[in-house]
This record gives sequence, C-alpha cells and structure tokens, in this order.
Amino acid sequence: MPAHTVKAYDEQLSRLRDTLMRIGGIVESALAEATNAMVRRDAAAASVIVQRDVEVDTLQRSVEDQAVRLLALRQPMANDLRLIVGSIRMALDLERIGDYAANIAKRVIVLSQLPPVVSVGPIQRMSRIVQEMLKDTLDAFSSSDPDKARDVWERDEQVDEAYNAVFRNLLTYMMEDPRNITPCAHLLFVAKNIERIGDHATNVAETIRFIVLGEEIEGERPKHDESPFAIVEPPAGA
Amino acid sequence: MPAHTVKAYDEQLSRLRDTLMRIGGIVESALAEATNAMVRRDAAAASVIVQRDVEVDTLQRSVEDQAVRLLALRQPMANDLRLIVGSIRMALDLERIGDYAANIAKRVIVLSQLPPVVSVGPIQRMSRIVQEMLKDTLDAFSSSDPDKARDVWERDEQVDEAYNAVFRNLLTYMMEDPRNITPCAHLLFVAKNIERIGDHATNVAETIRFIVLGEEIEGERPKHDESPFAIVEPPAGA
Repeated sequence: MPAHTVKAYDEQLSRLRDTLMRIGGIVESALAEATNAMVRRDAAAASVIVQRDVEVDTLQRSVEDQAVRLLALRQPMANDLRLIVGSIRMALDLERIGDYAANIAKRVIVLSQLPPVVSVGPIQRMSRIVQEMLKDTLDAFSSSDPDKARDVWERDEQVDEAYNAVFRNLLTYMMEDPRNITPCAHLLFVAKNIERIGDHATNVAETIRFIVLGEEIEGERPKHDESPFAIVEPPAGA
Repeated sequence: MPAHTVKAYDEQLSRLRDTLMRIGGIVESALAEATNAMVRRDAAAASVIVQRDVEVDTLQRSVEDQAVRLLALRQPMANDLRLIVGSIRMALDLERIGDYAANIAKRVIVLSQLPPVVSVGPIQRMSRIVQEMLKDTLDAFSSSDPDKARDVWERDEQVDEAYNAVFRNLLTYMMEDPRNITPCAHLLFVAKNIERIGDHATNVAETIRFIVLGEEIEGERPKHDESPFAIVEPPAGA
C-alpha cells in the first residue's frame, strides 16, 4: 500500500483498539461504582450507572462498524484480521458486562428502599475479585500479554466458589424470616450478575490470546458453579 | 474471480449459513426439551441437554474459524461482508442461548430431587413465547426476511411482562413457607434464563436485519423488565 494509505490503515486499527479500551474503562467503572452504590445503599449513584450504559451500546456498535469498514476497505491479513474479528467478539462481551453492571445498579435502587437485612460484605468481596480480573484483562489487551490473559482465565473458579457460598448464605437468610425474602432475592441476582461478569471477563481473556497467539485456549474452562445443584434445607420445624 | 473460485466461495458461504442453522436447531431443541424436562421433572432428559451443549461451543468456534478464513482468502464485499460479520455475532448469541438452556436443565435436575411445591405452568408459558420467537428468528434468517425479524424484536416485551408476573408469584410462594424457598430460588433462575434467551433471540433478529438491510434497528428496544424494581411484601404478621 502507498505510504499515506498505510498510515491511514494504522490509524484506523489504532482507533479500533482505542474504542475497545474506552468501552473497557466505562464497564470497569460501572462495576466498581455499582458495587460501591450497593454498599452505601446509594440510589442516586446507581441511577447514573444505568443511564451511562446506553453509551456502551453505542460504542459497541461503533466497534462493529469500524471492523466492517476495515474489512471492506483494507483487506487485512493475519494478525490484523485476528484483531478485527477479535474486536467484534470483545466488544460484545464488554457490552454484556456493562449490561450486567447496569442491572446490578437497578437492583441497588430497589434495595435502597428496603430495610438493610443482610450484610453485603461477601458480595462486595466477590465483586473485588471480578474487578481485578477485568482490570488485568484490559491490561493484558493493552500490552498484548497472553500470559496475563491466561492468569485471568484461571481465576474464574475463585469467583464461582465465592458465588456458591453467597447463594447458600442468602437462601439461609431467606428461611430465617420472610421479610428477608425480597431483598435477598434481589441480592441473589446481584451476585449472579457479578458471576456472569467474571465469565465475560474470562471470554475477553480468551479473545486476547486468540488475537495475540492465534489459538483458542485448550480444553474446558474450569467451571465450579455448583449453585444450580444447591439444596439448602430449611431449619427443622419451619 | 475464475468460475471454480466463485463456486468454492459460494460453497463456503453456504457452509457458514448451514453451520449457523445447525447451532440454531440445537439450541431450539435444547430450550424446548429443558422446558419439557422441567414440567415432567425428568433429570435424565435434563442431563442429556447439559452434555449436548458442548457441541454448541464447538460449532460456534467453527463459525468464527470459517468467518476468519473467508475474510482472509476471499476478500468479500458488501452483502457477503455483512453476512460474515453478522455470523460472528449470531453464533455468539446462539451460543449464549444454548448456555442458558443448559443452565435451565441443570436446575431441573435439582428440582427433580425436591418436592414439587409450585406450579411451573406460568414458566412453561413464558418458555413457549420464547420458543416461538426463536423459531421465527431462525425462519427469518433462513428466508432473509427482515419483517419477520422485526416482529420477533417487538415480541420481547411480552416475555418481560410474563417474567415480571412469574417473579412476583415466586416471591409470594417463598413467603408462604420456608420449604418453598430452595425450589423457588431455582425456578427464579429458570425464569430469568428464559427471559435472557428472549433477549438473545431478539439480538439475533437485529443481526438478521443488519445482514439483509445493512442497518441497525432504530431506537431503544422495548424493555419492560420491571423485576429489578419489584418489591413483594410478606403477609401481615409474618
């Protein structure tokens, strides 16, 4: 390609990466702020998060639009093709993360109107693990580091273990007092949303390895979400 | 392109569409069978669904693989480019649908070990609406029918209304008797999974319109999932 075309092409690729990092930054903040809003029972902060999620959808469509135009105009090969295809996948996973964070925020709004019946400490800790994963996965993308990406992939089982404990804990609270049921049901979904954000952060890590190395991660991802199989017995005489 | 190359190219595009329809068929069956297994409390049938979901992941990666190779080798333009990029998105949405259906099946396995405390009729009806949406969206893809796709998009709010009713209903059951809590918690997630399948079927409908018309659907998707905001009061004196 002529020199000016190479420059324009590189700028377009650069813009694609920038857009992805921007989405990453927004959803990273959304999860952190939704978690803080949950701890502080801050409905106003939660509302802001819900509104800002619209921007994520717009940026995700921009990534696809840029990808299609790069593919049509530049006819990229090899490495760049993996980046472009990987971008489509990554933008979708990040958009899902934003969606889950916004859903957490919606539930925080309700929870702030209900009495605080249960400690959200365990859920907050779950969220910190996932926030770390998300931060590391975005760092891995930025520095094209497949080992860092693999490390994120392996941390997903910690999230599942934390989620299993939260699930059982919340069911126990629900059995103690019917007044706990509504707030605990909402917290069940908050915890589930965090667990799914962990899944999507792991998907992004896999995509990064695909982009950098051109390979899929071997074998089944370690999954230890036992909660679908959880049975929690009510106390005797209930 | 020389004649034999055009033929090979058309065959590859055809194979890409076939793979997508195949994934569609598997996840369509998975949802129907998971729902029937829930109604019949059939753990054995549910296990089969869980195992078969591995095939969906394999086929999704095959779609991406085919898409990358088509992009690298054939340098497609316009319509074909939208099909190829749309395929990547569609395969991911269908893979999510398969995942949710498998999760429903996992919970059916647990539920079959617990006493049948609540009617699953409302959830079954929700599932039928979503099964129809999924069937129609796959038909729309097969016949390149953007109007049929738009019709699916508009049906998503029926799913949300059904889900809101189920959510409130299950919380009420949980308050009546602590022995209802564990089964109802699992059913809450079954219903949520069905609602999310409806979302992803709607995403597929949007992708079909993108492939056929080259445009995104205008405006916000009608969303009426009020359940994040639901407060259900326990009975007086509880």
